[in-house]
Amino acid sequence: MFYPKSHAVIGASASLQKFGGRFLGVLLSFGYGGRLYAVNPQESQVQGMETYARVGDIPETVDLATIAVPARAVPGVIEECLAKGIKAVQILSAGFSEAGEEGKGLEAEVARTAARGIRVVGPNCFGIYCPDGGLTILPGENLSRESGPVGFISQSGGYAIRVPRRASGWGIKFSKAISYGNACDVNECDLVEYFYQDPETRIITGYIEGVRDGPRFFRLLQEVCRTKPVILWKGGLTQGGARAAHSHTASLSGDEAVWDAVFRQSGAIRVNSLEELLDTTIAFLYLPPLRGRRVCVVGGGGGIGVAAADACERAGLSVPLFSAGLQEKLAGIVPPAGASVRNPVDVGGPFPAPQMLRAVLEAVLSEGVVDTVIVSELELARISGLMQGRAQMRGYTSEEIAEVPVDMKNRFGAPLMIVLPVEAMGADALEFEGARRDTRDYFLNKGLPVYLTLERAARALSNLIGYYEHRDAISSSGSGITT
Amino acid sequence: MFYPKSHAVIGASASLQKFGGRFLGVLLSFGYGGRLYAVNPQESQVQGMETYARVGDIPETVDLATIAVPARAVPGVIEECLAKGIKAVQILSAGFSEAGEEGKGLEAEVARTAARGIRVVGPNCFGIYCPDGGLTILPGENLSRESGPVGFISQSGGYAIRVPRRASGWGIKFSKAISYGNACDVNECDLVEYFYQDPETRIITGYIEGVRDGPRFFRLLQEVCRTKPVILWKGGLTQGGARAAHSHTASLSGDEAVWDAVFRQSGAIRVNSLEELLDTTIAFLYLPPLRGRRVCVVGGGGGIGVAAADACERAGLSVPLFSAGLQEKLAGIVPPAGASVRNPVDVGGPFPAPQMLRAVLEAVLSEGVVDTVIVSELELARISGLMQGRAQMRGYTSEEIAEVPVDMKNRFGAPLMIVLPVEAMGADALEFEGARRDTRDYFLNKGLPVYLTLERAARALSNLIGYYEHRDAISSSGSGITT
Repeated sequence: MFYPKSHAVIGASASLQKFGGRFLGVLLSFGYGGRLYAVNPQESQVQGMETYARVGDIPETVDLATIAVPARAVPGVIEECLAKGIKAVQILSAGFSEAGEEGKGLEAEVARTAARGIRVVGPNCFGIYCPDGGLTILPGENLSRESGPVGFISQSGGYAIRVPRRASGWGIKFSKAISYGNACDVNECDLVEYFYQDPETRIITGYIEGVRDGPRFFRLLQEVCRTKPVILWKGGLTQGGARAAHSHTASLSGDEAVWDAVFRQSGAIRVNSLEELLDTTIAFLYLPPLRGRRVCVVGGGGGIGVAAADACERAGLSVPLFSAGLQEKLAGIVPPAGASVRNPVDVGGPFPAPQMLRAVLEAVLSEGVVDTVIVSELELARISGLMQGRAQMRGYTSEEIAEVPVDMKNRFGAPLMIVLPVEAMGADALEFEGARRDTRDYFLNKGLPVYLTLERAARALSNLIGYYEHRDAISSSGSGITT
Repeated sequence: MFYPKSHAVIGASASLQKFGGRFLGVLLSFGYGGRLYAVNPQESQVQGMETYARVGDIPETVDLATIAVPARAVPGVIEECLAKGIKAVQILSAGFSEAGEEGKGLEAEVARTAARGIRVVGPNCFGIYCPDGGLTILPGENLSRESGPVGFISQSGGYAIRVPRRASGWGIKFSKAISYGNACDVNECDLVEYFYQDPETRIITGYIEGVRDGPRFFRLLQEVCRTKPVILWKGGLTQGGARAAHSHTASLSGDEAVWDAVFRQSGAIRVNSLEELLDTTIAFLYLPPLRGRRVCVVGGGGGIGVAAADACERAGLSVPLFSAGLQEKLAGIVPPAGASVRNPVDVGGPFPAPQMLRAVLEAVLSEGVVDTVIVSELELARISGLMQGRAQMRGYTSEEIAEVPVDMKNRFGAPLMIVLPVEAMGADALEFEGARRDTRDYFLNKGLPVYLTLERAARALSNLIGYYEHRDAISSSGSGITT
């Protein structure tokens, strides 16, 4: 894999109030490993580095330049980059086609220069986050240094930073996250194509507002979705959203009906929020290529079972009634009163004996009548003195309960999902949240996906299954759906 | 207000593994202020208390009894309570109509005894949480001791504890939260009627699975919704959910189409999850009786504006385009590039100068062209060294930004909502969450509602407005919608 070995920040400044100064600071703090050059004709030293007045003055080869100068100065700077033999630039500066006629002209000029032999990401973007290459976006100095199988493209700089930031703690690692802004040269098609070919990237995700070339994008999605899932959050499909998208990245968002068809026919997975994007990514990371929609929910409480069944069926999953034989078997395991064995299974309370939970899961999994088991809202985190007290009184701990689904996954190879909600939101209850996050990490490390609510788990699971159903339909119809 | 001054726990035990033992422990630890009696013929001392073999042996008047003995023993115990002159009991025991034919018979027996002059809550319930009366539900020893204007009824014991537990930290306080289980005597109609008359309760909320008397419930909702909002989460409306509800509380859940009509015609507010129930309650607690659906979103980022507009319009709100005059005014305030003034307003970044944010909000609010302003995803919490660094570099702090919406609310009396997401989910990022919760509490204390996502804020706001729209329609049509 090629990563830029030398990088010039044009518009680098001592002032952290300026984009170029902040970007340089962020890059230094993230730990870019290649040769870094600061370019600024007005400042001779910035953040401990000597500067060059112009990029042409740099005595060595430059692989990548980041441009953070006022919009009007950008076309000239790009010319200099081209002359210097730089292969690629990213333009952080705003004030282009999103800002009116003058900006449109400037952006067209940049695009013309790009066509002469330099690739341009942006303008109006936050850069590229690439842990392996030591690159990060603004203001991503604290993003994970670990690389992973998820690629993310974002027309929005805000989401380009928010998605990897919020992904931290959910076991989601990125190969690259790319803020591509107005896309005057490198656009969503190029980036999806890149991730399609990138062996490191298994799951492609994106936030997009508009596409330049609709037919190309659609054909590309059709092609890519045969082997890699593409999870897309399409912004601007309402009237107000479309207007905002136009102000933001000069995008024409397109019609909701058209986009419905694009998703349906390409097999790309449609999500409608940042949360759903992350939830669905977790499903693809942690679950096998599931086809069946039959779910068993195991919870500790009758109301939770009712809500779980409602949520699953609303998400397009089924919660099948267990056979009389399986019900009888389960009835011999759960407490005689206050439990339920028909599916959802209510083990009688949120703090079940580990051996009882084990027997329930064994009975369900060995029967093979469901495709996925969701373990919902049991008290799996040792969250306080209270829990420890309950553990003492009962003779088993939350940790011992938590081990059960992990064992079951290992023994049966079964798809299991965990719902672990934030129970207490009080500012004085942070230790609960700490224990909850530790428990979540325990499951993630053992390969079990964790969700905050049953609704979100069900939606993510349904998105996953829908993708594989589409893939099956495509491959069984031979050449795919015609357009 | 009358609260039980003496309370007998029948089936009280030294063992915390038994329901009666746990309930007594929880009540003692919550701090019941009246006279408490433990009844158990097998144990002479439990948790530091002398016991009575039978409730009839208690030498003084008993106002309330909690029954936690095996189902088969319950009818006899109720007879004794009746003989003792006790006015009301709550039955925690399970194993009644939800558990088959024998249980059905036992429940019918209990109901017959109730009809002879004793009110029964349950069976198969977790009790009543009433901070003023010193009563709590199982296992609610840690619930808030502070009373408030929200009443909650729950057919599920699990949600009866989860709703007040999760409400902690969102500024929601309860007058009473009542787990009513199988409702063999006191049912959802009685309880809604009670809250309707209860001067302490301004907002009625509930989780219900089935209703005993549909027409009475419908007429009651119609009546109550004229003056008090009723926020209902109806479980069991899918096939799987209905089956689970039947196993859980022997409820017949009813048809989704029927319930659609009940909600539409009564004006009760329909919610579909615990989260939406709490979000909507927060809206009623913190916002005035809003009628208009015009929203202005002020955020720090273009993508956030696009997503916000999409979320608002999908929730049935409108994000109207600002007039040329207002746009011009705003354009003179926000940064020249990377901002947007059409609505949503993008102030250019998530860390705006307080005076700039103030000028933007003043311009929008003094124009009077929107009904609500949502301030979304600005960096309002001083969440780390990083933020302090940015504050130093810019010369203003997150606290100073946070003061602005509070001032605006005070000056304009304007409905303002705050979206404050959980930014970092890592187990090592708890200090962020701590600062976020402190900032949330700051806003709640100043009377501004806070939400985790824009989608949830928009949905809650739409639920609030829908209620008042219905009320207006009812009152303008005179006698209300006929049935």
